Amino acid sequence: MTLMRSWVAGANSAEGEFPLNNLPYGVFSVGGDDPRCGVAIGDMILDLAAMEAAGLLRLSDDLVFDVPFWNEVMELGPEAWARLRVMLFGFLGEGAETRGIVEPYLVPMARARLHMPILVGEYTDFFASAHHARNMGALLRGTPGLPANWLHMPIGYNGRASSVVVSGTDIHRPLGQVPQGAFGPCQRLDIELEMGAIVGTGSTLGQPITTAEAAEMIFGYVLLNDWSARDIQAWEAQPLGPFQGKAFGTTISPWIVTPAALEPFRCGPPVREVPLLPYLQEAVPGFYDVQLQVQMQPMGAARASTIARSNYKHLYYSAAQQLTHHAVGGCDMNPGDLLGSGTISGPEKAEFGSLMELSWGGAEPLTLETGEVRCFVEDGDTMTLRGHAQGDGFRVGFGPCAGRILPAVNMPGW
Amino acid sequence: MTLMRSWVAGANSAEGEFPLNNLPYGVFSVGGDDPRCGVAIGDMILDLAAMEAAGLLRLSDDLVFDVPFWNEVMELGPEAWARLRVMLFGFLGEGAETRGIVEPYLVPMARARLHMPILVGEYTDFFASAHHARNMGALLRGTPGLPANWLHMPIGYNGRASSVVVSGTDIHRPLGQVPQGAFGPCQRLDIELEMGAIVGTGSTLGQPITTAEAAEMIFGYVLLNDWSARDIQAWEAQPLGPFQGKAFGTTISPWIVTPAALEPFRCGPPVREVPLLPYLQEAVPGFYDVQLQVQMQPMGAARASTIARSNYKHLYYSAAQQLTHHAVGGCDMNPGDLLGSGTISGPEKAEFGSLMELSWGGAEPLTLETGEVRCFVEDGDTMTLRGHAQGDGFRVGFGPCAGRILPAVNMPGW
Repeated sequence: MTLMRSWVAGANSAEGEFPLNNLPYGVFSVGGDDPRCGVAIGDMILDLAAMEAAGLLRLSDDLVFDVPFWNEVMELGPEAWARLRVMLFGFLGEGAETRGIVEPYLVPMARARLHMPILVGEYTDFFASAHHARNMGALLRGTPGLPANWLHMPIGYNGRASSVVVSGTDIHRPLGQVPQGAFGPCQRLDIELEMGAIVGTGSTLGQPITTAEAAEMIFGYVLLNDWSARDIQAWEAQPLGPFQGKAFGTTISPWIVTPAALEPFRCGPPVREVPLLPYLQEAVPGFYDVQLQVQMQPMGAARASTIARSNYKHLYYSAAQQLTHHAVGGCDMNPGDLLGSGTISGPEKAEFGSLMELSWGGAEPLTLETGEVRCFVEDGDTMTLRGHAQGDGFRVGFGPCAGRILPAVNMPGW
Repeated sequence: MTLMRSWVAGANSAEGEFPLNNLPYGVFSVGGDDPRCGVAIGDMILDLAAMEAAGLLRLSDDLVFDVPFWNEVMELGPEAWARLRVMLFGFLGEGAETRGIVEPYLVPMARARLHMPILVGEYTDFFASAHHARNMGALLRGTPGLPANWLHMPIGYNGRASSVVVSGTDIHRPLGQVPQGAFGPCQRLDIELEMGAIVGTGSTLGQPITTAEAAEMIFGYVLLNDWSARDIQAWEAQPLGPFQGKAFGTTISPWIVTPAALEPFRCGPPVREVPLLPYLQEAVPGFYDVQLQVQMQPMGAARASTIARSNYKHLYYSAAQQLTHHAVGGCDMNPGDLLGSGTISGPEKAEFGSLMELSWGGAEPLTLETGEVRCFVEDGDTMTLRGHAQGDGFRVGFGPCAGRILPAVNMPGW
């Protein structure tokens, strides 16, 4: 697919993340304004709430863009989502007759503050890269074999929704228990390179869904950093899985990229080592070619160093398959539920999606381009995920998914 | 403590669950009325929304009882919770001068439908009975030893909040994958006898809390049945813990019993086999003597059979300790968060809190009082948890926590 041209400055650059092909959804404010819904185009944000208030944009009988989350649009369903995209093409496409009317509603992105784009319902994190699963098996359990269930179904666990934050939010290094019951600040603070799928429409308690229904329910995708305290996790995770080691923060990108924008980048499913059960089979596989990278910037370093490059297509299970499995026992899903893909590691060491893998459990330190040596994240380090799908002369990107680690707080009464 | 007498019929019975000492909070409706907040007293419910609308009860500047959940009262905080209890004593105590004014706002419980009493934020389930942990270790992992971390901290996992339902809600037997990737309806459907603690006020992302702060944050307690699909759980739970085996339904009692009502039943903490770290120590241990039982009634059976009796005091970690641990790494907690205690098994076989333990993994079937034989829950069976604290001539109870299992649904396209 080639670039769709827009009259908006900066939207036609081959290197830009937000051409007309993309149109990702976010929540922004300027100065002390109330946060509201907007769409990124070039270096600008189109203020959808203001257009709606002016009567220029109407998606339903109620106002849906004047709130600090996209959940109200989600609840309108896929037909409305498609209608919005068509309206935005009309407003922003090159030669649009309405340009003079729309232009006053553009806000320079540089002046805007970006907020959480959704109210997160519940957060579930999966484990869908075979390369990551084999690496973690080798590192944590002494065997690179996959768990017995892994090739049969998406393995996941319920994460903590309250601590999902938007890119740019600082995260305190967690306190916690580490092996044998010692207590203190985490010593092995890690990131996980993931993408998140946002559930846009719900399902009913007691009723499974098909993969085709699941695909229709997905509103969009974000980059997601599942911050992980490896030492806390190692001590707590048997027998009930990760808990406080994953609860201190999960960072998502500010922009939600729609399935419609990613459609040209759909790619084939992985080779199935074990045939999937019928309920997990997809007529149209939900995998996308999205190039990903992890950057690390110590406090005071002149620039960020890229420490890994991976691709969303390295996963074994699609978001629609994960969502289908999530509901197969009758668990009801709701608008705003967030599904983490699991760490996206590729087959090569340079493609590993966590420091645990990149430093091989701390045994093989990384030297950054700016000279610092790291096994895990240190106080003051900023970790940034980036991702884009590469078209013919254009990109579809997510904006940075960044977070800085602050020192651990003092425990009250400790 | 002795009975506090009320002028309300049925509130002074030694066998009743809702004397003036109790005053548990619920949400009810009559006929087609909107669900609203009420308090149980004897065989009646006091309609707090109607009293508030009539100007007879005011807890804050805003109306807080005219909604189908107690979250708005929770957010007012412990001082308001205490004030409400004092006001209710004034309205409902024997000899109250306002009796003539209050009496019209009593609704017979027999005419009311009970609803979910809260909007559940997030649901976390713990694993806090050493007897249960040892039993499950023996049954699932071939060793009755506790996990290495168990005596050092409360072990828990994030559960699924969307499928928490109120007593009386039917639950479909879940479909899912069982060992080696077979698919079909769960064959080992179980219950877990638990109590739930409801978080009433929140904490801040990045900030730990003390056990004293945690105790102040707890709004109340419910009975909780954490329905479990043992075969699905056995196949999925390595390495990330329970997921779909626990996601198809969790039933809570309709009435929230407050810490104030349970205060007379506070009891000593268990003997600590390993000293607790300072952050988990409680100046005032948060354990209560609450007698619990599990009843099973097959469809068509003349009556329910009691299959187990246990006690909330058998836990090793209190709800305040669990909440403190939940926030120790900086995870923010919010009003409406629900913490399951974990299965409450006592030391004796008749005190085990799940069928997995009672039938010892299906090897030792139970014969009910009505003659049926069971290892696990069959279609049409109703499982009911009951609980009360026993005072001197009175009880503080929760109302039944009941659910019936319906057959598995047909999977679409299966």
